[in-house]
Amino acid sequence: MNSSLRHPQIQPANKGIAAITPYQPGKPIDELKRELGIDNIIKLASNENPLGTSKHAIEAMQTALSDISRYPDGFGFELKQALSQTFGVGLAQLTLGNGSNDILELVARTFIAENQSAVYSQHAFAVYALAVQAVGGVGIEVPAKDYGHDLPAMAAAIRPDTRVVFIANPNNPTGTWFDEAVFAQFMAQVPSDVLVVLDEAYVEYFPENFNSLPFLKQYPNLLICRTFSKAYGLAALRVGFAMADEGVTNLLNRVRQPFNVNSLALAAATAAVGDTAFLENSRALNLAGMHQLEAGLRQLWLDWIPSRANFLCVRVKQDGMGIYQKLLQKGVIVRPVNNYGLPEFIRVSIGLPEENQRFLQTLAEVLGLTPAVADASGAQAADRVTG
Amino acid sequence: MNSSLRHPQIQPANKGIAAITPYQPGKPIDELKRELGIDNIIKLASNENPLGTSKHAIEAMQTALSDISRYPDGFGFELKQALSQTFGVGLAQLTLGNGSNDILELVARTFIAENQSAVYSQHAFAVYALAVQAVGGVGIEVPAKDYGHDLPAMAAAIRPDTRVVFIANPNNPTGTWFDEAVFAQFMAQVPSDVLVVLDEAYVEYFPENFNSLPFLKQYPNLLICRTFSKAYGLAALRVGFAMADEGVTNLLNRVRQPFNVNSLALAAATAAVGDTAFLENSRALNLAGMHQLEAGLRQLWLDWIPSRANFLCVRVKQDGMGIYQKLLQKGVIVRPVNNYGLPEFIRVSIGLPEENQRFLQTLAEVLGLTPAVADASGAQAADRVTG
Repeated sequence: MNSSLRHPQIQPANKGIAAITPYQPGKPIDELKRELGIDNIIKLASNENPLGTSKHAIEAMQTALSDISRYPDGFGFELKQALSQTFGVGLAQLTLGNGSNDILELVARTFIAENQSAVYSQHAFAVYALAVQAVGGVGIEVPAKDYGHDLPAMAAAIRPDTRVVFIANPNNPTGTWFDEAVFAQFMAQVPSDVLVVLDEAYVEYFPENFNSLPFLKQYPNLLICRTFSKAYGLAALRVGFAMADEGVTNLLNRVRQPFNVNSLALAAATAAVGDTAFLENSRALNLAGMHQLEAGLRQLWLDWIPSRANFLCVRVKQDGMGIYQKLLQKGVIVRPVNNYGLPEFIRVSIGLPEENQRFLQTLAEVLGLTPAVADASGAQAADRVTG
Repeated sequence: MNSSLRHPQIQPANKGIAAITPYQPGKPIDELKRELGIDNIIKLASNENPLGTSKHAIEAMQTALSDISRYPDGFGFELKQALSQTFGVGLAQLTLGNGSNDILELVARTFIAENQSAVYSQHAFAVYALAVQAVGGVGIEVPAKDYGHDLPAMAAAIRPDTRVVFIANPNNPTGTWFDEAVFAQFMAQVPSDVLVVLDEAYVEYFPENFNSLPFLKQYPNLLICRTFSKAYGLAALRVGFAMADEGVTNLLNRVRQPFNVNSLALAAATAAVGDTAFLENSRALNLAGMHQLEAGLRQLWLDWIPSRANFLCVRVKQDGMGIYQKLLQKGVIVRPVNNYGLPEFIRVSIGLPEENQRFLQTLAEVLGLTPAVADASGAQAADRVTG
């Protein structure tokens, strides 16, 4: 029974809020330990970096531990300097967030008033809809195409009251992506008074897809959102950032909490930006892990949504939530995606080789499958999901 | 020149936002170093704990550094357990914030819709007005009495469209406080559909004032807001919390970002809650420092607003911003409070004995004053500010 029912609400909340279903995070390892009393748990549920964190970032945090009683630098000078040098944008184009989640909410709070609308895709990252709902806005969900964003349809869905379009490249939880030509065509179609939020939380894993930064010069209504929680391995610390036009940035920073990013996050992220070797290793490990998972899934005759991120959405051909629960019982935490309109899928983050192997074996067990022996051509393998 | 003027704004922001003047933090030591090229700077500007941080908290962070690539526990189970045990409230009454600033904003975003009003006092903590403005609400500022909250007048200022009253005990930047009888009378007058936010950011310094927790049982429209940034010495990490009715808490947690408090903050705060010795030392150091500053100010024939926090508002009898600037040039960072309607004052945080001494000496220099020799009775000393 919901506690708000037991306690009659004398404080009516703003429009939309009482109906919010909070974001469901990946189950923490400690929580599963408490619940099942088991050890040897692996978590492939939150698209975290299995390599851990850059050594330079850890060192920077060690140093910053000496000054914990002081407030952070609210401007984030050193991190902004590092970002500016790395990505070639001005300091006045940068907004720091308490994770990129904070950036997404800042956008909604700054630009979407009650009853105004925002456009996002079916199967898109859940926080878009939540951020819109929390400000009393109206979400317009555009049907996906082959599980990915249908950008022409999204452009066409923009209404006169639309203030923001949220797009993710690649998207979470599907891993789907679009290329530069499609994006260029989309941007040309979006009215200039509608802000496009391009969420690139996973862009570091397949940077060869395309470089979105040059579009910033052309489109003052484009905001690129990135995070240190994925390839940079700093999820615990909460740091993300936006790159946008100075005018947009100026407004976001009026709403931003003065100390939204903590000191250790600032120090760690500043060190992590420059550690290209760590990023390269993360990328290589991820690519190898994706090949490993794909090969293993082929042997199980399972298919998946092609991904350019650090996770795969696997079609388990039955209730994904049930499979998720069975995997939990065996100490393997993945992510159910029924709440994303993908009830026959589970999402698995790409882990270390031994974690990937354990996932494949455990999945085979709970599905009652026996791996097929692959021939040299892989000809017997299941195809990828094609829509 | 404002960058939003150079860049014509094609994205109109929500009501109130373009007019926000962002919160001005205390100047960081590193920033002053960059600007002036000087060393030997002391910062008494942000009411930080001069004792630093609990050793147990530092140890907890050291341990947590091994898991930086994992997301925090979004529920904050262990910290909530510790808070529940320490303060005798249920887990379902607790909301964790990225600093108490986050709590204040969550309240505004949850309960104050565009054009609805909130009541706060003149000279009150600046974030109340900013949080109201950011949601397009209307702030009702009630004149202070002897620099402190005039609670009967604040109760009387509540309008039919008022959703929240923000009160601080003690208040920042004045240090003023009210006692239990005044608060009890106030709560009895506030309509039950108006949420009272009692901000106790500094309560640990003078806990003998009164214990607000029993009021939670009587008033489901009371929210008590606290922070780990002051007496607990964790300002860098950003962690605050709210204690309130389960219904209010349930709503706040629908709006709260899923990972608003980072892992190191959770670990450190959990360890800090139980370190009563550190808290006791902080309290004792603060009391001695307050006596030291008061004695020194008496010798300079200066007066101040009586305070039950870890700072004093000193009347410099001339433009406080000018004195602030002159102190900066000499490496002493305090806080100008002209933006709080206190142009003849500066606010100084109570520091280590040597920092307090340096502040007093430097203040005497920039004011051109010679300390008077106090007689045993202190009879020549200036009186405290009386209104």
